[in-house]
Amino acid sequence: MLITSFSPLHYLLCINLRNSVMLSAAPALEHLPTPSLVVDEAKMRRNIKRQEKRVQALGVTLRPHLKTVKSVDIARQMLTGGTGPATVSTLEEAEIFAAAGIRDIIYAVGIVPQKLDRVAEIRARGCDLAVLLDSPEQAKAVASASRKHGQAIPALIEVDCDGHRSGTAPGAPELIEIGHILEGGGACLRGVLTHAGESYAVCGRAAHAKCAEAERRAAVRAVEVLSQAGLPCPVVSIGSTPTAHAIEKAEGITEIRAGVFAFFDLFQAGIETCSTDDIALSVLTTVLGQQRRKGWIITDAGWMALSQDRGTASQRLDQGYGVVCDEAGRVIPDLIVSQANQEHGIITVRPGSNAVLPDLPLGSRLRILPNHACAVAAQFKEYQVIPQEAGTTLKTWQRFGGW
Amino acid sequence: MLITSFSPLHYLLCINLRNSVMLSAAPALEHLPTPSLVVDEAKMRRNIKRQEKRVQALGVTLRPHLKTVKSVDIARQMLTGGTGPATVSTLEEAEIFAAAGIRDIIYAVGIVPQKLDRVAEIRARGCDLAVLLDSPEQAKAVASASRKHGQAIPALIEVDCDGHRSGTAPGAPELIEIGHILEGGGACLRGVLTHAGESYAVCGRAAHAKCAEAERRAAVRAVEVLSQAGLPCPVVSIGSTPTAHAIEKAEGITEIRAGVFAFFDLFQAGIETCSTDDIALSVLTTVLGQQRRKGWIITDAGWMALSQDRGTASQRLDQGYGVVCDEAGRVIPDLIVSQANQEHGIITVRPGSNAVLPDLPLGSRLRILPNHACAVAAQFKEYQVIPQEAGTTLKTWQRFGGW
Repeated sequence: MLITSFSPLHYLLCINLRNSVMLSAAPALEHLPTPSLVVDEAKMRRNIKRQEKRVQALGVTLRPHLKTVKSVDIARQMLTGGTGPATVSTLEEAEIFAAAGIRDIIYAVGIVPQKLDRVAEIRARGCDLAVLLDSPEQAKAVASASRKHGQAIPALIEVDCDGHRSGTAPGAPELIEIGHILEGGGACLRGVLTHAGESYAVCGRAAHAKCAEAERRAAVRAVEVLSQAGLPCPVVSIGSTPTAHAIEKAEGITEIRAGVFAFFDLFQAGIETCSTDDIALSVLTTVLGQQRRKGWIITDAGWMALSQDRGTASQRLDQGYGVVCDEAGRVIPDLIVSQANQEHGIITVRPGSNAVLPDLPLGSRLRILPNHACAVAAQFKEYQVIPQEAGTTLKTWQRFGGW
Repeated sequence: MLITSFSPLHYLLCINLRNSVMLSAAPALEHLPTPSLVVDEAKMRRNIKRQEKRVQALGVTLRPHLKTVKSVDIARQMLTGGTGPATVSTLEEAEIFAAAGIRDIIYAVGIVPQKLDRVAEIRARGCDLAVLLDSPEQAKAVASASRKHGQAIPALIEVDCDGHRSGTAPGAPELIEIGHILEGGGACLRGVLTHAGESYAVCGRAAHAKCAEAERRAAVRAVEVLSQAGLPCPVVSIGSTPTAHAIEKAEGITEIRAGVFAFFDLFQAGIETCSTDDIALSVLTTVLGQQRRKGWIITDAGWMALSQDRGTASQRLDQGYGVVCDEAGRVIPDLIVSQANQEHGIITVRPGSNAVLPDLPLGSRLRILPNHACAVAAQFKEYQVIPQEAGTTLKTWQRFGGW
């Protein structure tokens, strides 16, 4: 790993190219190999603060989803007091974050019986790990594992607010059946959880506020059903990054989950949860050639670095495999990665634009803003961090993958 | 990592389900966590042998591309004598395979000046690593690095046979310019290389044979241009997995490259380079629930495990995110992963099929055949290998990622 000295002021190396593109360099990054995954810490901290303020204003708890960052260094910045509450998408995340001192975690993917021994082991090491389920069969498995391990494993019931994935209907009698199986079988009903997948398909604060209200109503309805049956429901958890930024009313809920908000990405910009300038994550790449007649600039960041996420393809503005910036992180207008092979990215002018392809010489360094932060970050083992404090050296934060 | 005992005969646990699907279990896999990446070693060895025979029959050398497998254990099985020749797509691969004793490697992504010190270091450790280029600017950088490091770095010129990516035109005068810059500047012209990207867009042996002939002609034409200028061209390298299986005539070439042939995948089956039964790679997953009214089975293999490669979407038969098999690896007819979230896969009956969704209970184990072996394997740190020899235990082979 290369750590380079960082100049107090990003000096700007302005190269007047044939087509008048001014490329700004970032000395902090100049010795990094490419492709590398770069985090702008100042933007990341600003994004985290914005999300915290929004949730605090509603008087509820923020439970960040750590599946995007998969990094203990970043988790510490995202979590209240650095120890939780948190959400994870794999037991690998639960194990690593528990080992790092995080004490309150929801594993927010429906539990399967084969994973319950591992859940019990993580709990036995002092982390209050709760599981998620939506069927009596899963509840029986959790109750059985609770008895086997001599500890009440807590479970939340997933409630489906918009038909996007798993979950019981908000008023389903199954809620009561599941609750009784857990509570009567040696496990523990921790609460209900819902996620507005639909919020990713609509654009703008007003639409996201409606989705947030749908999440809230579904969760509150489920709580009513459980309460009428005399069942406990201490945690009422809703959230997605779009709804967590637009929610206006939090009556009846106890916490909000969100994940991608620390980095943001082009998909979130496309649905107006953030601006392009808020995106804290990018992939550093090097120009390796051109095919001038075709209007192509070829770089060393293909889909292995950028992922194959084409989430913006269904949005108003298709960003290809990412938006091209100079090394200092400034967007070069109308330049996108329009094709990607395993280790080659092909940059072109955006279809329909009048922009002229700049003549970027061999060895030029660029940064690509990603469609989907979760997918792109997953392709790397570490973050190269441009520190918030001017004059300090580039930092490296480890990240992990796997299950 | 769990290593489980392996029964001499895969006994078949046939469960008669509501919709008469017979699920066969594979005891060797029963203690693996999910998702896991599974290799059927017998199929893999058969695939490797088939490719070797094809190339040997033409009297040329096979230079496997190791970007798919990224595993020293598998590389040893793919390479002649276990030491090369080989192709790689990153310098990380070059470093790891060189350290494992592979002595002849082409780094088949256009070189950038910033990577040449690392190339020289790998060469200094005893591996004959050659680079790829298609411009005088790159040739100057290679010549300069050769002088700096006091060693003639060998370079191949990439020739474009079908307009798919990088490369000079086969008869371009630039070939001579590049050759002279290398040979006169202290570097070394190793030869020419072409890759028929177009072969992925056409189906069947006859079409692939045509692409192979286009590769061959482009390479031979470039050799003629170089020879007329008195420039050397010891290596004439062509290849892609489809063309390497269909090539009929090898006059003028010295070697054939191919990569995905060891595993194959649904994309290759879609263009008839292999059959579905040849696919040696799959993702083991567990059923975590159902949404019966929607016709969904939900599993724990989402796009983080299956990748977001949707390469079959443009083929005659769209396989979604993969074809569903039972745990023993038998295809369940007309069942595909039709949607994928980060850690959730949604299995449905193939659109237009008359098949009835089977009632797979919580905890059922399935295997998913991937669209694209390179992309799916990249999501995992290790292969779980069902060994060729009956009665031996499951093996684990490490794989690596990064640059």
